[in-house]
Amino acid sequence: MNYRMVVYLMGWVLNIEAFLMLLPCAVSLLYRDGCLRYFLPVIAAGWLAGWLCVRRKPKNTVFYAREGMICVALVWICLSLTGALPFWLSGEIPAFYDAMFEVISGFTTTGASILTDVEALSPSMLMWRSFTHWIGGMGILVFMLAILPLTAGGGYSMYLMKAESPGPSVGKMTPKIRNTAKILYTIYLAMTLLQIVLLLLGGMPLFDSLCVTFGSAGTGGFGIKNDSMASYTVYQQAVTTTFMILFGVNFNVYYLFLIRRFKDGLRCEEMRAYLAVILAAVLCITWNIRGMFPSLFSAFHHAAFQVASIITTTGYSTVDFEQWPQFSKTILIVLMLIGACAGSTGGGMKISRLIIGVKEMARELYSSIHPRSVRVLRFEGKAIEHQVIRSVNAFFAAYFVIFAVSVLLVSLDNFDFTTNFTAVAATFNNIGPGLSQVGPMSNFSQLSVLSKCVLMFDMLAGRLEIFPLLILFLPSTWKK
Amino acid sequence: MNYRMVVYLMGWVLNIEAFLMLLPCAVSLLYRDGCLRYFLPVIAAGWLAGWLCVRRKPKNTVFYAREGMICVALVWICLSLTGALPFWLSGEIPAFYDAMFEVISGFTTTGASILTDVEALSPSMLMWRSFTHWIGGMGILVFMLAILPLTAGGGYSMYLMKAESPGPSVGKMTPKIRNTAKILYTIYLAMTLLQIVLLLLGGMPLFDSLCVTFGSAGTGGFGIKNDSMASYTVYQQAVTTTFMILFGVNFNVYYLFLIRRFKDGLRCEEMRAYLAVILAAVLCITWNIRGMFPSLFSAFHHAAFQVASIITTTGYSTVDFEQWPQFSKTILIVLMLIGACAGSTGGGMKISRLIIGVKEMARELYSSIHPRSVRVLRFEGKAIEHQVIRSVNAFFAAYFVIFAVSVLLVSLDNFDFTTNFTAVAATFNNIGPGLSQVGPMSNFSQLSVLSKCVLMFDMLAGRLEIFPLLILFLPSTWKK
Repeated sequence: MNYRMVVYLMGWVLNIEAFLMLLPCAVSLLYRDGCLRYFLPVIAAGWLAGWLCVRRKPKNTVFYAREGMICVALVWICLSLTGALPFWLSGEIPAFYDAMFEVISGFTTTGASILTDVEALSPSMLMWRSFTHWIGGMGILVFMLAILPLTAGGGYSMYLMKAESPGPSVGKMTPKIRNTAKILYTIYLAMTLLQIVLLLLGGMPLFDSLCVTFGSAGTGGFGIKNDSMASYTVYQQAVTTTFMILFGVNFNVYYLFLIRRFKDGLRCEEMRAYLAVILAAVLCITWNIRGMFPSLFSAFHHAAFQVASIITTTGYSTVDFEQWPQFSKTILIVLMLIGACAGSTGGGMKISRLIIGVKEMARELYSSIHPRSVRVLRFEGKAIEHQVIRSVNAFFAAYFVIFAVSVLLVSLDNFDFTTNFTAVAATFNNIGPGLSQVGPMSNFSQLSVLSKCVLMFDMLAGRLEIFPLLILFLPSTWKK
Repeated sequence: MNYRMVVYLMGWVLNIEAFLMLLPCAVSLLYRDGCLRYFLPVIAAGWLAGWLCVRRKPKNTVFYAREGMICVALVWICLSLTGALPFWLSGEIPAFYDAMFEVISGFTTTGASILTDVEALSPSMLMWRSFTHWIGGMGILVFMLAILPLTAGGGYSMYLMKAESPGPSVGKMTPKIRNTAKILYTIYLAMTLLQIVLLLLGGMPLFDSLCVTFGSAGTGGFGIKNDSMASYTVYQQAVTTTFMILFGVNFNVYYLFLIRRFKDGLRCEEMRAYLAVILAAVLCITWNIRGMFPSLFSAFHHAAFQVASIITTTGYSTVDFEQWPQFSKTILIVLMLIGACAGSTGGGMKISRLIIGVKEMARELYSSIHPRSVRVLRFEGKAIEHQVIRSVNAFFAAYFVIFAVSVLLVSLDNFDFTTNFTAVAATFNNIGPGLSQVGPMSNFSQLSVLSKCVLMFDMLAGRLEIFPLLILFLPSTWKK
């Protein structure tokens, strides 16, 4: 293990986080909410600690997958510890574990909250809370790779990118990882700005536009109102629906559009499956809830918003879907598990993993009828490497085991099964609200400390796709 | 497709089923319940239809995996259609789809019932209902292979055995499949007789002993009392607990004991994991429910009974575990999904599949730290064949997809999520009772016809391990 290198990279991340905290500081100055004194010490400490770590560049730059995964896991934990400080120092979230929960929920773009009254938070705190979504969405290490010229030796950029990006395999857009990171963040930033502008045009205040956009760009879902998105206009909600869906698409597609390979972009198998699932879900739910709304359009509008919100694992809501018929709620639970596309900011199992799983099943069926046939699994027009199939299967196994253990531990709180099941589903897949006691109009505050810790682990495991976090607990990781 | 051969084998199965129906006829004579006139026509029809099918032995005995799977699927459907007739003819179950549900539940050893008052059934009907568990437990085609000298040409016995036996791979005890089938049924019969004798010694009436034993031997779970097993003595319950656990063990172990290879038997990895899971679950639940029972022993006794009943997918109950704390209920739900050992009469995903999944996960973790290492997955001391891993993964994918679709369809009835989720879990894994509206003291009668059909499919898919049933729906199966 190259500890020096891990510490060095963590130093840079601390510096970047401190720099990003200047945004809530600006908000604090503008709104005079008196929170500047809670942010500034954290920024100072972050800069100092970061400076100590990056002072000397390590000579040994050997860096493998192991270092990459551990680095990502530790960076995310450290990021959350630092990010929770302003909430805790200001007393706006009195308990430190609650502040940790909230900020992990932010960085992992989950959007599950322990706050019973969001509107009581100061504007700068609200801004920082929503901004964590944006930072976590595309990944802070990817951000670091994009902006810093750290390219000296060692393949660490590739390993970092692999460990932090969602999905079974990283689409290398360009041979140089740094360029890929830059392109990703450029697309991300451009789409974010576009959404802000469209919301402003719809008459939403700047502060709200920023927060709502950060939440949908990162597919996070922290609202700044107690009723999430219910009090915004239909136009504003529709814009948000559209952008949630767009941020859940594999960013490779946008890159292909960017370099004018429109046909290749539109041929993306994962995107097509993703849009097909959305369409089917919206139509089924619209039909199921048509009686609960004044018009068919209204039912369609709310069905589309909720489906987009859940499948992209954002977690905004415009209505209390806890009141919907069981069929619609079950569709939403299934969407929770599926999640968005790989290579997007969304969470969940990812559409591509599901496609690979279903293709494996189809091959097995086919080969039990035609035992001598040899069928190669293909995805996006290419044969899937054996290694990818292997890791997808291992992912499913790990997913199932962690899910079951988490539900078991959370059930110690003695809430009903729906609460426990959807609390885990909603955090492990980085969605936000579940059903029943943790439903869209409720929150996670009533859970015990043990449950909160389990769910924090699940949120991190969900965002980092399980393995980087599990590796921390493996004894052989720490052996020489 | 060799249709002639499939029809020929189905004929034999019909004959055997007609023969086995003589047991309820004997009961009817003894108890003079007047049901003889419902059984006799079915027996006559079965013999006639069977005779027509087996009259001429097909010349073409070509028989592959495809024929094996389709044959098993069709046999089980045909078996259920015939088996449901007495219930329906007698009017004791008025609707034919309900009679089908009950009998599929019997043959697949599920034990989910649509009867609100079991005790109202005639003794001969009760006996037939419980006897279906015993027939389905080890499989009727395996029974046919054991008793009939059908060995002329074609490897069909192996393919039939593979398709009907539970688990990822069939343990070939002897080179000749027919001998393996004989050994399996000998062990099965011997253990059944032992349990009957032990129950009789405990003062249970002969009729009850037979029915209870059939239910636990097949890991079925149809009770003949409305309170399932609650009104029996502690001794009788304890005997049942023990035998449920024993029937959930991989029968290979008993074969190894039989040929005096005790050490090899005790070394069985799957059995050890199975017993470890049982022990852990019993201890956790005992601790969790200790306050609800007069003594620690009583809590342990009921925890052990329920755990044995659920993990072996039997489904008997001695208490209403719906009243237990959520932690205990969640443990039971997890056990529902896990199931018993491969090569036993139990259902579920099977312990061995879980072990293989967890080992895949561990290998993936290990190889992400040591990318150049080559680790071969080993199970029961042998390297797992690539083909087995592949089919295990395909099984998981199919399991997940069918589970999700079933829950969605059942949710149209608008019961709560716990009901829908555990109704599917309990039928797909061939357990019997779920929780909430389909809990241990309740039944499946209030579900809609659509839901019942979905659950019938799930029961068959669960018993036949999905693929044989799915193949029926594949267009390429029926192509020349």
